[in-house]
Amino acid sequence: MHAAILVALAAGAGAFAPAPALSHRAAPLSAEALKIGIVGGGTVGGGIVEILTHKQEQLTACAGGVGIEVKTVVVRDKSKERDWALPPGCTVTEDVDDVLDDADIDLVVEVAGGTTFAKDVVFGALKKRKDVVTANKALIAACLPEIEALLEDVNAEGEKVSFGFEAAVCGGIPIIHTLQTDFVGDSVTRLRGIMNGCTNWMLTKMEAEGVSYTDCLTEASALGYAEADPTLDVGGFDARSKLAIMIRLAFGVDVNEDDISCKGITNIKQVDFAYAKELLGGTIKLLGVAEMAAEGHELTAYVTPAFVPDGNTLAVIDDAINAVEITSENLQSSLLVGRGAGRFPTANSCVSDIVGCARKGLPEAFAKKTTDVTFMNDFSSQFYLRIQYRNEVGIVGNLGDICAKHDVSIYSLLQKPESDYFVLITEYGPRSNIKKVAAEVEGASWCVGDTFLMPVATKE
Amino acid sequence: MHAAILVALAAGAGAFAPAPALSHRAAPLSAEALKIGIVGGGTVGGGIVEILTHKQEQLTACAGGVGIEVKTVVVRDKSKERDWALPPGCTVTEDVDDVLDDADIDLVVEVAGGTTFAKDVVFGALKKRKDVVTANKALIAACLPEIEALLEDVNAEGEKVSFGFEAAVCGGIPIIHTLQTDFVGDSVTRLRGIMNGCTNWMLTKMEAEGVSYTDCLTEASALGYAEADPTLDVGGFDARSKLAIMIRLAFGVDVNEDDISCKGITNIKQVDFAYAKELLGGTIKLLGVAEMAAEGHELTAYVTPAFVPDGNTLAVIDDAINAVEITSENLQSSLLVGRGAGRFPTANSCVSDIVGCARKGLPEAFAKKTTDVTFMNDFSSQFYLRIQYRNEVGIVGNLGDICAKHDVSIYSLLQKPESDYFVLITEYGPRSNIKKVAAEVEGASWCVGDTFLMPVATKE
Repeated sequence: MHAAILVALAAGAGAFAPAPALSHRAAPLSAEALKIGIVGGGTVGGGIVEILTHKQEQLTACAGGVGIEVKTVVVRDKSKERDWALPPGCTVTEDVDDVLDDADIDLVVEVAGGTTFAKDVVFGALKKRKDVVTANKALIAACLPEIEALLEDVNAEGEKVSFGFEAAVCGGIPIIHTLQTDFVGDSVTRLRGIMNGCTNWMLTKMEAEGVSYTDCLTEASALGYAEADPTLDVGGFDARSKLAIMIRLAFGVDVNEDDISCKGITNIKQVDFAYAKELLGGTIKLLGVAEMAAEGHELTAYVTPAFVPDGNTLAVIDDAINAVEITSENLQSSLLVGRGAGRFPTANSCVSDIVGCARKGLPEAFAKKTTDVTFMNDFSSQFYLRIQYRNEVGIVGNLGDICAKHDVSIYSLLQKPESDYFVLITEYGPRSNIKKVAAEVEGASWCVGDTFLMPVATKE
Repeated sequence: MHAAILVALAAGAGAFAPAPALSHRAAPLSAEALKIGIVGGGTVGGGIVEILTHKQEQLTACAGGVGIEVKTVVVRDKSKERDWALPPGCTVTEDVDDVLDDADIDLVVEVAGGTTFAKDVVFGALKKRKDVVTANKALIAACLPEIEALLEDVNAEGEKVSFGFEAAVCGGIPIIHTLQTDFVGDSVTRLRGIMNGCTNWMLTKMEAEGVSYTDCLTEASALGYAEADPTLDVGGFDARSKLAIMIRLAFGVDVNEDDISCKGITNIKQVDFAYAKELLGGTIKLLGVAEMAAEGHELTAYVTPAFVPDGNTLAVIDDAINAVEITSENLQSSLLVGRGAGRFPTANSCVSDIVGCARKGLPEAFAKKTTDVTFMNDFSSQFYLRIQYRNEVGIVGNLGDICAKHDVSIYSLLQKPESDYFVLITEYGPRSNIKKVAAEVEGASWCVGDTFLMPVATKE
């Protein structure tokens, strides 16, 4: 295998300026290797070191002959035991300046997480004209325009600095590279997907085993599927951060993530699986959706549980898997499915970006940009409305009146025997109308507690 | 939108050497645009011209500020009416040398098809140190080692020449880029997928509507889903060419496509859908499969109809859609789904490669390379064997003896009332054994005609 790889190295040698191609063959690889500093020596950081160590030859070939050397790893506590082996010649330090101030380091990998220290690392490295690779979804979702402005500033002259963040969105799914490179000549009209593994695992289990939401969450946390603060998962906020980042890449539109309406899975009950299945056939998924209308001038986006009918591929994406569906002019419909999180899926995406930097081929980070788009909060769909009721005369008549008043047409209605709930499926119409219906129903004498509303996803 | 794009251009301007960044802002784009020649002005060629024309600003931004100009289009017959508009300043010619001999042309797009003229175009352009983008699956499957050797030769010194072929495999699915960039630090253990849209459309229709194979093929041809020679589709050969190319990228192994065992869908009957569904639950798909065993030293690959059980996502991929599933050490399981063919899906992939060349960021074409792998023809699986019979005493006993003789364990057996067929599902075991069973059964007095054998795909 060595001989074969060396042939490939020699062939691709011209990629890494400025040394002439022939010198690659004679000189040891380390002479012009890309030197990296990793900030964060935990789960993902350790995974990166392991992949870089074990796949060295293959990585060098894919980088066009450029070796990759981990020079420094910054950890919080040097005395803490690590589950990964230090590569030869690599230093472990607690001082991030050992990376930021080291002119020898070409690329900084930020896998520390958070938005304070990590922000200093990412911004500090870019300012020092180092390439940056990060897995930090929260930081990018919060600071994308700032990062973009800094990149523009740094890249206004001199050799280009690259910013890779494949690992920040949907872990092992190459959705960032795909949006950056495979839709350059296309116009995306809709993004839709299952963007959080923890909640998808929970919903799958709730439906298959009839387990309650609370018990599922306890188990998801024990299995490590939930974030340290599970509110980020079950509240839909983790999915929303990913959606906001993907919106920028797919549509070229900057959306403040807080402006995207966000509803989690906390109010889903067993009865919803049964009613929805009976009325329409299918299942419930937590979806992130962004859709362009008005010929590219109006964007709606939201995170919500949704009823996903049979025949929609998203309906069969189970467990802790993520899936992103892209609808576009040229490609029509594309779907990417994979692990959304985990040590090696995330580390693999970081390594892919590191190799992209080594071969100077990482795509433009935020090339698509559009400013003449209005962000619309309302959106249209069929909706599922679950209502808890107490028996009274005239409920259906009253409900019919309320729907008519707010211009909502009823597609179907189901009340199972011995259930405290009935469920209404609307015809296609604006969410604002059905929300008015829900609000008015909640004020009726026969309604108990809060109603539960979710859209019905289209099959296509 | 103009202002926004111009900001992005200025920011990314450093990417295209040798002009200094600031000159980008002042100079017109055409001054340093990438000049391309397109060989083939038909469906795909016209689609490329249309995308390049209509998405110009977006493409330039994604190419880091480099404009893309179609200088020349080579067509077979200049007098033939075209369904696409000629870009300003573009020449149409019937002489391919107007492209190959034009030192001004940086990149040649080959969308003429075939393996004779197209081979001259691709090899001629590479020899002249022009980047090449092609949609030609047949050429690459037939000549991959030759193309690789030429690239090595050309790239041994001087500025690197790029070779893009995203459009050659599964049209609009970015499987080539994904294998080239997102698995650089990973080890693929299995590739599996639906790699031919025509046959998937036919199988979907056969199952859903009970239409015969022959009627389906007639309709598929009329709808333009079939190749000019439909044998390439229904015989599995189109899928096999794609599989051979993907094997090289995923595993680094050169396999002669003729060495890959290939069975098409021509012998599938309605009864197979019914029997398979009843025995196992699921459907029938034409799959391309490649699997690595023996710690990366043994590879098996085959194209075959397969029973795909419910719960396997491939079971719900219907109509003319392609899907490729990649199993790997780091990412575990990834799935890419999309249009496998068609004007704009294919043209979109070409444009993505053109932009990759413009920004000098196209990945290494064939970086992964392994030579210590043995290609194995046999493989193990559960199998489905359909047998047509005439009534005799002792059939089951005789069949049991034949299976025992060849070390095949029976998992289940079904004979529906009033059917001329019965079906056997085996336990997991080598194909060579069940093929011996099939051969011996075909010699039995109670067997009518040929048996039909296909593997049962695993759920995961």
